[in-house]
Amino acid sequence: MGERLTVAVVGATGAVGREMLKTLHDRKFPAARVRAFASARSAGARVPFGEENLTVEELKEDVFAGIDLAVFSAGGAASLKFSPCAAQAGCVVVDNSAAWRMDDRCPLVVPEVNPHHLEKHQGIIANPNCSTIQMVVALKPIHDAVKIRRVVVSTYQAVSGTGQKGIEELERQVRDLFNGREPENKVYPFRIAFNVLPHIDVFLENDYTKEEMKMVRETVKIFDDPSVKVTATCARVPVFYGHSESVNVQTEKKMSAKEARILLSRSPGVFVYDNPRENMYPLPAMHSGEDPVFVGRIREDESIENGLNMWIVADNVRKGAALNAVQIAEELLKRDLVRVRDRKMFAQ
Amino acid sequence: MGERLTVAVVGATGAVGREMLKTLHDRKFPAARVRAFASARSAGARVPFGEENLTVEELKEDVFAGIDLAVFSAGGAASLKFSPCAAQAGCVVVDNSAAWRMDDRCPLVVPEVNPHHLEKHQGIIANPNCSTIQMVVALKPIHDAVKIRRVVVSTYQAVSGTGQKGIEELERQVRDLFNGREPENKVYPFRIAFNVLPHIDVFLENDYTKEEMKMVRETVKIFDDPSVKVTATCARVPVFYGHSESVNVQTEKKMSAKEARILLSRSPGVFVYDNPRENMYPLPAMHSGEDPVFVGRIREDESIENGLNMWIVADNVRKGAALNAVQIAEELLKRDLVRVRDRKMFAQ
Repeated sequence: MGERLTVAVVGATGAVGREMLKTLHDRKFPAARVRAFASARSAGARVPFGEENLTVEELKEDVFAGIDLAVFSAGGAASLKFSPCAAQAGCVVVDNSAAWRMDDRCPLVVPEVNPHHLEKHQGIIANPNCSTIQMVVALKPIHDAVKIRRVVVSTYQAVSGTGQKGIEELERQVRDLFNGREPENKVYPFRIAFNVLPHIDVFLENDYTKEEMKMVRETVKIFDDPSVKVTATCARVPVFYGHSESVNVQTEKKMSAKEARILLSRSPGVFVYDNPRENMYPLPAMHSGEDPVFVGRIREDESIENGLNMWIVADNVRKGAALNAVQIAEELLKRDLVRVRDRKMFAQ
Repeated sequence: MGERLTVAVVGATGAVGREMLKTLHDRKFPAARVRAFASARSAGARVPFGEENLTVEELKEDVFAGIDLAVFSAGGAASLKFSPCAAQAGCVVVDNSAAWRMDDRCPLVVPEVNPHHLEKHQGIIANPNCSTIQMVVALKPIHDAVKIRRVVVSTYQAVSGTGQKGIEELERQVRDLFNGREPENKVYPFRIAFNVLPHIDVFLENDYTKEEMKMVRETVKIFDDPSVKVTATCARVPVFYGHSESVNVQTEKKMSAKEARILLSRSPGVFVYDNPRENMYPLPAMHSGEDPVFVGRIREDESIENGLNMWIVADNVRKGAALNAVQIAEELLKRDLVRVRDRKMFAQ
């Protein structure tokens, strides 16, 4: 079937959209045709797909006829509007925005963790938040082995999580500061250069940010286990690519650091990089462009009976977004699920 | 008595030594004379003290006669060698290195937290680690009110914690990267520019870093309460001045976020800066050069019964080092403790 598929990348001119095209090409996704869509503003632009260039088409409600699979990275508002059009046209959507993640009709999937959730999809599948993806890839094997009760996570997130404009803001601010100019804040409320902002996405009623609550709620949905309690503090750091996470887990049964190292080194999507004596630990700037979730600094937490600390790093644009979406598409194909069972499910 | 004191700053040419001189001057510490010491290499140099310049004298074993009080920031090896000489000469030492912190003969003091520990000093008083100081200033009022059982802390530490050479390394690496040159790593094992290093100080047997274990052990000593359990992950971020900490506390009794805000806003040395709706939260780059420990992002931790999350920021060179040392000196003066009771206590 794969060879006859027509695949669309929606939001193809953004940082994640471009990475999606690159990932589809690099992983030789079996598509007969790949089309690139973006808003009217970007229509007509050219985006690279391997050696070719694709001409970006304007995203409209009626473009999805004949498209089998669409990976979206066009923001929440565009996804809310266009994903249902796609599903109604019979096109399966893998969406990278937050719009559908907590919708009961939409599986929220990390292929290494809960690929079976795809079986019941209704046309729209949500790609989790970047900081959630890398955490659950590392924690799932531990949860399966000794049951995780509670997670305390603090993040160190790269500016590429905000897209191309975040990257440009950090770069411009550093240049301005080093040239004696007052840096302007266009994207973030405060200077990100040589600073740390404990503020990602908007603040909610409970004084947590939306980003923090994504980590709490998405983890429960992906693990399909409301007994897993998560509390999160999310901070933006002046790093271009790669999110880092300091993760503390409390488990029901004991797991030693050594056991965790062995378990994780055998787990899909995880690369254990952990030898403090040789200064081996994951670093965001060093693992940019790589696929795995890197785990290091694995230590028993001496403050509780059954606890572990670890340091989890992944390329947020790659495994945190584009790669995970393409892996979902691959899994759909493998399971022969590139079809929409009920075209009226997302009728508006 | 104060007006007749002779005070020495030992390690006067370093980042913290200079800040100590500035702090002594700015706070009008009642010294009749201030002298500056450093290693032979720096002897003869001039360091600013208010409008004056002090000529740096060479640090030798016999220089302490006639000096009443010495604040040291000369590193662990120099302190191990020279602090006992000072105490034997009748000079009270406030030492900023890690050398004496866990020594039972030496109080480890944060004036807002445990000033009474000074009463039993024997000539050498230790200044805690920068990341410990700011955490305990914020946590002590909570501990007194509802008893802290467990703390999970992740730090975001500035390069100035490594001294002037850390500041220069970040600056040089950024310039090199922006000019297309390969940046050299002289101070840190890996590039710090646009990166995060989960590695501060050396690794210990248990795979924690010494910095992490300082936070665990120093907190217990300062609180004088071994029932307080701490687990820490310490990371260096590309920030020049100001350490940030994501701190999760589990308490015996319940304290709401609102109660914590009120309590902390009345606590010495703390400035509550916490109004997410107005984007008010502590930022390391914005509070550099200021005295208080800034606390914001105070939230109830919904993953446990009695828990709080908070974001703690302070100028690591100031409250984290120089200011705290000078505050100890002030407290010694206030309590009439600028004298060494037993000159043989630290005999070598």
